Amino acid sequence: MSNQKSSFTFSVTARSGEARRGILTTGHGDVETPAFMPVATQGTVKTLTQRQVEELGATIVLANTYHLMLRPGADRVASLGGLHGMMAWDKPILTDSGGFQVASLAALRRIDDEAVTFRSHLDGSLHALSPETAVAIQEKLGSDIAMVLDECVVYPSERAQVQRAAARTLAWARRCRAAHRRADQALFGIVQGGVDEDLRRESARSLVELDFPGYGIGGLAVGEPKELTRAMTEVSTQELPEERPRYLMGAGTPRDLVESVARGVDMFDCVLPTRNARNGTLFTSRGKLAIKNARYTDDPDPLDPECTCYTCVHFSRAYIRHLFVAKEATARTLNTLHNLHFYLELMRRIRKSIEDDRYEAFSHELEEIDNPI
Amino acid sequence: MSNQKSSFTFSVTARSGEARRGILTTGHGDVETPAFMPVATQGTVKTLTQRQVEELGATIVLANTYHLMLRPGADRVASLGGLHGMMAWDKPILTDSGGFQVASLAALRRIDDEAVTFRSHLDGSLHALSPETAVAIQEKLGSDIAMVLDECVVYPSERAQVQRAAARTLAWARRCRAAHRRADQALFGIVQGGVDEDLRRESARSLVELDFPGYGIGGLAVGEPKELTRAMTEVSTQELPEERPRYLMGAGTPRDLVESVARGVDMFDCVLPTRNARNGTLFTSRGKLAIKNARYTDDPDPLDPECTCYTCVHFSRAYIRHLFVAKEATARTLNTLHNLHFYLELMRRIRKSIEDDRYEAFSHELEEIDNPI
Repeated sequence: MSNQKSSFTFSVTARSGEARRGILTTGHGDVETPAFMPVATQGTVKTLTQRQVEELGATIVLANTYHLMLRPGADRVASLGGLHGMMAWDKPILTDSGGFQVASLAALRRIDDEAVTFRSHLDGSLHALSPETAVAIQEKLGSDIAMVLDECVVYPSERAQVQRAAARTLAWARRCRAAHRRADQALFGIVQGGVDEDLRRESARSLVELDFPGYGIGGLAVGEPKELTRAMTEVSTQELPEERPRYLMGAGTPRDLVESVARGVDMFDCVLPTRNARNGTLFTSRGKLAIKNARYTDDPDPLDPECTCYTCVHFSRAYIRHLFVAKEATARTLNTLHNLHFYLELMRRIRKSIEDDRYEAFSHELEEIDNPI
Repeated sequence: MSNQKSSFTFSVTARSGEARRGILTTGHGDVETPAFMPVATQGTVKTLTQRQVEELGATIVLANTYHLMLRPGADRVASLGGLHGMMAWDKPILTDSGGFQVASLAALRRIDDEAVTFRSHLDGSLHALSPETAVAIQEKLGSDIAMVLDECVVYPSERAQVQRAAARTLAWARRCRAAHRRADQALFGIVQGGVDEDLRRESARSLVELDFPGYGIGGLAVGEPKELTRAMTEVSTQELPEERPRYLMGAGTPRDLVESVARGVDMFDCVLPTRNARNGTLFTSRGKLAIKNARYTDDPDPLDPECTCYTCVHFSRAYIRHLFVAKEATARTLNTLHNLHFYLELMRRIRKSIEDDRYEAFSHELEEIDNPI
């Protein structure tokens, strides 16, 4: 078994209620938490260069094992210097296990205790992902943080099904832990248990006994009501050790992030800022803005008058709308720069308000982020 | 009539054979010539931000009047601060007159001595472009260099048709000159005359009598053999005054640029580097490279081992091919950065070799740029 602590540490440096301010150290540098990880699905944050991602202040990105194992392939990534070398990104990278996207994207999925077997959505080729291969692939990708293979159930599901998936996830976590070799890569466990409080507590407790260097909170933001997401997030963090980072997988809206930090979450990833950007939906301090709306045709204001990103410092809504309507790729780049800046700036403000021990007040000040404008 | 010399000057600072090294001064800064102008058709260089264009070392870009008059519209551009304000690009901008793209893109085109009438390719709406409106629109766009409205004939055309078009172009040049008001914008005349030496000399001479601050060489690179393009370029520059810049419109390949500079051309624009980039064709010191080719699947080398652009310094052919095959927008951005760097670097080397008075030798050293690799 690897000695993961050789290059991975986490420490909580301040608290405000349940919200935690921390620092995560990896072989590729530090990550101030709470942190948001822009999604670089296929080895790039869509529409951006790595230089732009770095200039935005991102200190860690997430890449998707499912996509990368199919194309360009884990061995190819390894031969190109791992994800860091291939992408020329020398800061931390987290990879998911591939399990979630197998469930959502692949065809003909069959799951048993041994592995999940599926056909590629690209060419129909047959693949299997077992706990051991999920670890081996992520070791080839060379991420700083890898995730165990888990089974995620849809919402709603029968309790028995949720229980079976949680049990399998635990068994797989054990196998992943045993298979993991890279000392320069931390392997996180994943809490499952659906929206059943008892199952979730049980999943978390059993996982904690395996002593992972960090924990994902999985199986949420899959269609359940927000109140359940938040309750289950809280239940999960309550069972997780204080001194280990908690990563709420796949969340979420700016409000989701703020509420989850209040419940003790340290790390996030979500396609929302980047996907919305490409669709022309911008996050602003006053709420969401749909740039294709005709009301912006002559609007000389920036997307968000309070924003300091490259896009807002230089360009008007009218110009961005023009580029968007004219289908110029530059519009999607400018929108992505803005939305990621919004998320990363939100995290900076979250971290500051925890340091200042005024997180609850800060959360209330952010009412407008939920509105459409 | 405007006093264009108030903000526009040109001086030749060195010669090597017929090749000229010069400097063009505008109200938005200087342009070292021979210069290549990246094309920002709709108010942006496709796939790039203006910061990236500036970092590439571009000192002037070209925008297309036809596209911008239709969308977002010249009045809107004016109200957003002109092209410079709207695009947040504070270096020189050249606009074409719109005539060429009316001929190539618009539907139901009808041309007479008064104007060219056409339907928008976007929504079928009816528009007219006269010498006076072409000037008025470009004044609203606020470019540093505007072009007269010309009539460009296809190749091959009957001599009588070429002659009529050249005569109309001259008459329109006179009307454009009379209509032009902005002292901070230089208006260039355009030499026509197809591939008929006599007509071309006559077109150039008559135009020179009107004393424009610069001259476009139009009606070339429209399908005629390269030898004719080069011969007609030479015929045109022979008739044009030494102390005024010459702009070969719409050219061309790297070799076209090198050969045209040898014939006394100072300025170029072409969609080739940007369009090829988006299609995955890269210019390199060893020739053209098609990145989708399977031979690059595992290739750890940069696109061009001799290149110093952001793309080549950081990324392998294998990674760029992966992004391109995966249809990641970032691939098109990285390719565009590379191809524009290639063109702009070529111009830097062209300028240096003229300064060193070894232009002919330099031209011979560049044999490989024409090969496919």
